[in-house]
Amino acid sequence: MNSLSLEKSQPTRVERTLCDDVSAAEPGSVVRVQGWVHRRRALSAVTFVVVRDRSGLAQVVVRPDDGQDVPPEETTVEVVGTATANPQAPGGVELTAPTITALTEPAATPPVELWRPSLNAALPTMLDHAPVTWRHPARRAAWEIAAASVRGFRSTLDAAGFTEVQTPKFVASATESGANVFEVDYFGRPAYLAQSPQFYKQQLVGVFERVYEVGPVFRAEPHDTVRHLAEYVSLDVELGFVRDHRDVLGLLRDVVAGMAGGITEHAAGAVERLGIEVPRVPDRIPVIHFADALALVGAPPEEPDLAPEHERALGEWALREHGSDFLAVEGYPMAKRPFYTHPQPDDPRWSNSFDLLFRGLELVTGGQRLHRPSDYVAAIAAQGEDPAAYASYLQAFEHGMPPHGGFAIGLERWTARITGAANVREVALFPRDLHRLTP
Amino acid sequence: MNSLSLEKSQPTRVERTLCDDVSAAEPGSVVRVQGWVHRRRALSAVTFVVVRDRSGLAQVVVRPDDGQDVPPEETTVEVVGTATANPQAPGGVELTAPTITALTEPAATPPVELWRPSLNAALPTMLDHAPVTWRHPARRAAWEIAAASVRGFRSTLDAAGFTEVQTPKFVASATESGANVFEVDYFGRPAYLAQSPQFYKQQLVGVFERVYEVGPVFRAEPHDTVRHLAEYVSLDVELGFVRDHRDVLGLLRDVVAGMAGGITEHAAGAVERLGIEVPRVPDRIPVIHFADALALVGAPPEEPDLAPEHERALGEWALREHGSDFLAVEGYPMAKRPFYTHPQPDDPRWSNSFDLLFRGLELVTGGQRLHRPSDYVAAIAAQGEDPAAYASYLQAFEHGMPPHGGFAIGLERWTARITGAANVREVALFPRDLHRLTP
Repeated sequence: MNSLSLEKSQPTRVERTLCDDVSAAEPGSVVRVQGWVHRRRALSAVTFVVVRDRSGLAQVVVRPDDGQDVPPEETTVEVVGTATANPQAPGGVELTAPTITALTEPAATPPVELWRPSLNAALPTMLDHAPVTWRHPARRAAWEIAAASVRGFRSTLDAAGFTEVQTPKFVASATESGANVFEVDYFGRPAYLAQSPQFYKQQLVGVFERVYEVGPVFRAEPHDTVRHLAEYVSLDVELGFVRDHRDVLGLLRDVVAGMAGGITEHAAGAVERLGIEVPRVPDRIPVIHFADALALVGAPPEEPDLAPEHERALGEWALREHGSDFLAVEGYPMAKRPFYTHPQPDDPRWSNSFDLLFRGLELVTGGQRLHRPSDYVAAIAAQGEDPAAYASYLQAFEHGMPPHGGFAIGLERWTARITGAANVREVALFPRDLHRLTP
Repeated sequence: MNSLSLEKSQPTRVERTLCDDVSAAEPGSVVRVQGWVHRRRALSAVTFVVVRDRSGLAQVVVRPDDGQDVPPEETTVEVVGTATANPQAPGGVELTAPTITALTEPAATPPVELWRPSLNAALPTMLDHAPVTWRHPARRAAWEIAAASVRGFRSTLDAAGFTEVQTPKFVASATESGANVFEVDYFGRPAYLAQSPQFYKQQLVGVFERVYEVGPVFRAEPHDTVRHLAEYVSLDVELGFVRDHRDVLGLLRDVVAGMAGGITEHAAGAVERLGIEVPRVPDRIPVIHFADALALVGAPPEEPDLAPEHERALGEWALREHGSDFLAVEGYPMAKRPFYTHPQPDDPRWSNSFDLLFRGLELVTGGQRLHRPSDYVAAIAAQGEDPAAYASYLQAFEHGMPPHGGFAIGLERWTARITGAANVREVALFPRDLHRLTP
């Protein structure tokens, strides 16, 4: 972990020890830690200093005859001290007889007390001071879980022959992106910000067969809700040569299991700090048809969508009947799905698409797409649009595309569900919404 | 590679074989491939069909009594045939007595002949038809190298305790982004697209110490050159607790070596198809000071920057004197660096920043940043701006930041240099520039 050239280039000093590794230091040895003054607690005869770095916390004991000033909390410091066993210290080892060097000017008092076990601040305070409030170990844990999830997402797909792609965020027409698009002044003419890489990931299935992208998408959401952001991170997947949406769902199962596995493997400390349970993904996700789902929850058969209370009831049913936190609902009415959705072959009122529910909340939407050029022309015309407006997208289909499908996972929504955050704003590093554009 | 649930759900059919694996098929066995008709060549007694999939090419032989129609080139097909040894076939095995099933309508004739060994098309043709021209194996190789480089970038940093972050692309003020920013209509008020994650990655060093981001950045470049795009992929790194820019350069060395290693490990086929050489990264990158570099190339000592011909001469010198494709130039004049740049402690005319040259071309810019809040206030005031305009950025420094630094690598520029592409547009999947907004 520290075998980089940058560490090797510092041979003359005692090597830095991460706070979490202080517990393993040889008693009596000289240890150097670097980090933030997490907590400074002056008692009559001694001052306890807790130093925080990216790994965790370490305790430093300062006695009057050490002749050391302890800078205010959040100041960055280097501490060189003697590792000393103390059963009361975190990890059983603390640093004594320290030399403390401040690495910057004394820090201003943080807007919230970061050393308290939990961060009890109102959401606007948390967000206004994001660069500081993210330092709280419990808050930081949420992002560690997000990052570990993305790592698991990629490693699952890399192992399955997928190619990572990067598609443009500037698009030429609002048509490509649907409603609620942001308009940009693009060298004096209008352009739009992509609401999703949908069209591009499909075109790239024509090149690489299997593609994924992790990147920002932009939605001018006029709704001020706990689950909408103007900008969020979309984990997009698309693959060719599928039989139908069930193959896509099979892949989604593996990807979700990979994301959960990423958390377990790379963010175990964060899981512990938050006291959450990483979801267990069944080998096969139970599937119910949309029509059966309506019947199950007692909704009228002509309902075009599932209401939140329906989704909750379905989640309870999946847990009760299948012991699963996950449930896929397939066959959503074509009328409610975008034009590129593949219909259900035996009954075109329904679609070869699905939603994945996690504990009764919608987590992922996906499905099979159309792949025959004539189907696209008909579908675009059927919604009253001119296929010529889609010419650059349609060339991929005219020149041969396989049956394909895919899905998109909203990172913030995923992280909120896993961590139990009530609002997606809590798990975006610097959220953007109707009202917020800073920090 | 094919052990996913999605593959397991297809037990009743002969499992799909990737084209590259046909050579390993048991002669006489029944093999199923899926892909595009890459080449259809009808001779008097036989038609040769080359099928292309994500792995490579496989040959299918169709005889009149097979009773098979061969759809036009680029049509997607499934072919079930008998593996038959033939020393003349690619890989020594071809499929005979095939059943060919078209998976879509007959494909339109491609704008360029994709089956030719090299793609001889003018750049505008290549770009106008990107969804199709990327299918050419040699062209696709460039992106495979890009994707493998990113994979090596991440794995190097993941192993060194870095956290991947995702920072906002909407920013509140043009100040944060400098000149050439794109303006967006953000719910009726102006916002701007981030030109770099610089401010955010620094703030996040205060949280995670070591961060990286792979994502789009936006520059309203009015210049129509072979190395500027309006949107490109930036590989951004920032880390805390450095001594100075030399620690940053040490990390950059490891990251560049990791990217080269990613290519060797994950894109060997692409390297072979392009006939290129993956650069060898020396254990230590030679470093020359800016002032010495000027003297070496015979430029006046008051020059504020290196001209392209100077960089070329320095590249030749590094190869001749150090046997290195890479050379770092450190100490660029403070006057030419952004305000957050850390000065050289013993002579503040110079900076603790560097450019990394690769074969005489600038590839990466990086360095140490200021970390004391009072230094920021002074630096912002010195360029005639009000520090209050930077309030949300500055709170990270007021609340304690470590000495830190970082760098940014432009993915398209990197890929162009590695593959020898003359224009960055050739290696962006769907480039965006002054004139181009589609496909």
